Amino acid sequence: MNSEDSLARLAAVIESRKTAQGGDAGKSYVARLLQQGPDAVLKKIGEEATEVVMAAKDADHGGDPGRIVSEVADLWFHTMIALARHGLGPAQVIAELDRRAGTSGIEEKASRGSRPPGEG
Amino acid sequence: MNSEDSLARLAAVIESRKTAQGGDAGKSYVARLLQQGPDAVLKKIGEEATEVVMAAKDADHGGDPGRIVSEVADLWFHTMIALARHGLGPAQVIAELDRRAGTSGIEEKASRGSRPPGEG
Amino acid sequence: MNSEDSLARLAAVIESRKTAQGGDAGKSYVARLLQQGPDAVLKKIGEEATEVVMAAKDADHGGDPGRIVSEVADLWFHTMIALARHGLGPAQVIAELDRRAGTSGIEEKASRGSRPPGEG
Amino acid sequence: MNSEDSLARLAAVIESRKTAQGGDAGKSYVARLLQQGPDAVLKKIGEEATEVVMAAKDADHGGDPGRIVSEVADLWFHTMIALARHGLGPAQVIAELDRRAGTSGIEEKASRGSRPPGEG
Repeated sequence: MNSEDSLARLAAVIESRKTAQGGDAGKSYVARLLQQGPDAVLKKIGEEATEVVMAAKDADHGGDPGRIVSEVADLWFHTMIALARHGLGPAQVIAELDRRAGTSGIEEKASRGSRPPGEG
Repeated sequence: MNSEDSLARLAAVIESRKTAQGGDAGKSYVARLLQQGPDAVLKKIGEEATEVVMAAKDADHGGDPGRIVSEVADLWFHTMIALARHGLGPAQVIAELDRRAGTSGIEEKASRGSRPPGEG
Repeated sequence: MNSEDSLARLAAVIESRKTAQGGDAGKSYVARLLQQGPDAVLKKIGEEATEVVMAAKDADHGGDPGRIVSEVADLWFHTMIALARHGLGPAQVIAELDRRAGTSGIEEKASRGSRPPGEG
Repeated sequence: MNSEDSLARLAAVIESRKTAQGGDAGKSYVARLLQQGPDAVLKKIGEEATEVVMAAKDADHGGDPGRIVSEVADLWFHTMIALARHGLGPAQVIAELDRRAGTSGIEEKASRGSRPPGEG
């Protein structure tokens, strides 16, 4: 299985947890988060980004780098929930990353300034 | 092209920007960020997560949801740079997400409490 | 000089940097930040919060705790700019903290759950 | 009461919640947070910074600016807990802000570049 399949499958699970799709907040973490309103998942994104930073700092100080993977997975997962609330998903993110990594993408941006690729 | 190719290709570009691989901070944003030391990319992760939150808030208030995609792409991109510093990449993140979305994954976790899937 | 004077004095400096008060973006960091629009200072808050976290992690691993002070000062400073954009300042924050630390404040909240004091 | 008194009083409450000072995690939110180890309060700082950003975005879109005050109070409060873990407190933060707002402080820094005051 490739990562497109993986991300698409996860996006489909998230989609199915929407109340309109029968998502049950009593059984599903995603359904619960979606029902708590727009800010709940954004708060988690702030929290998970902080956990990525802490795991990376620990790894820089000799800790297990594997924890970064776990925290990045949490962060990506919650950004997918935020996207799903607006009818968007990982396919659009991948397309955007593709666009930036295209022929002239990353380096062209880099030569124009210190902004991250594609942010211009 | 599928997203495995996309993410793997982007990871390969990031890898090639390491100083040891000939990355040139004068030409490449990624090379520059990698050379600034461990905190530079983590600071960006905090900043980009904030931009995701702001774009989502604007979309909640009627703004363009497309901006969320762009900011999430920035965030994923910088997490990939943080991972690359530790010899890790999107393949491990996808594997972790796969593991969580597996047969009993998301729902099993959800039924155990309010922690994000797989965080247990 | 007490800290009421200190915070109030800093708030007055920030206030004087507003364009309407003659703030000059060519000379003043605060004036520049205020002129860049609402998101600029919020992005800084996300970034400075991340720097506090990184400084604390470094201190936990044996680094200089003094850096936490410096990063917290940066964070407080930027929250004061965000407040100033809405005609608010440290006096209101202190009043809110006073309210929470009052007779029944912190402990009452604590006994009700895991939410931070006064958040309920 | 001035803000130095207020912040010092709050810092004293936090100090008294340390286990060594008899802090009881069963009764006190602060004691509980301190006992959860170094990362717990840092995670809260990331979360509370995100809440400041969300409250400010809502206010920019017509919402109640008072919520920014409440969220900034939460953020300052948690930074004080992080400082307390290292034997530091608001007095040092105020001293640092004083130093920056001093005679040559903010404007001198502003004229040197785009870095926040005193960060140089």
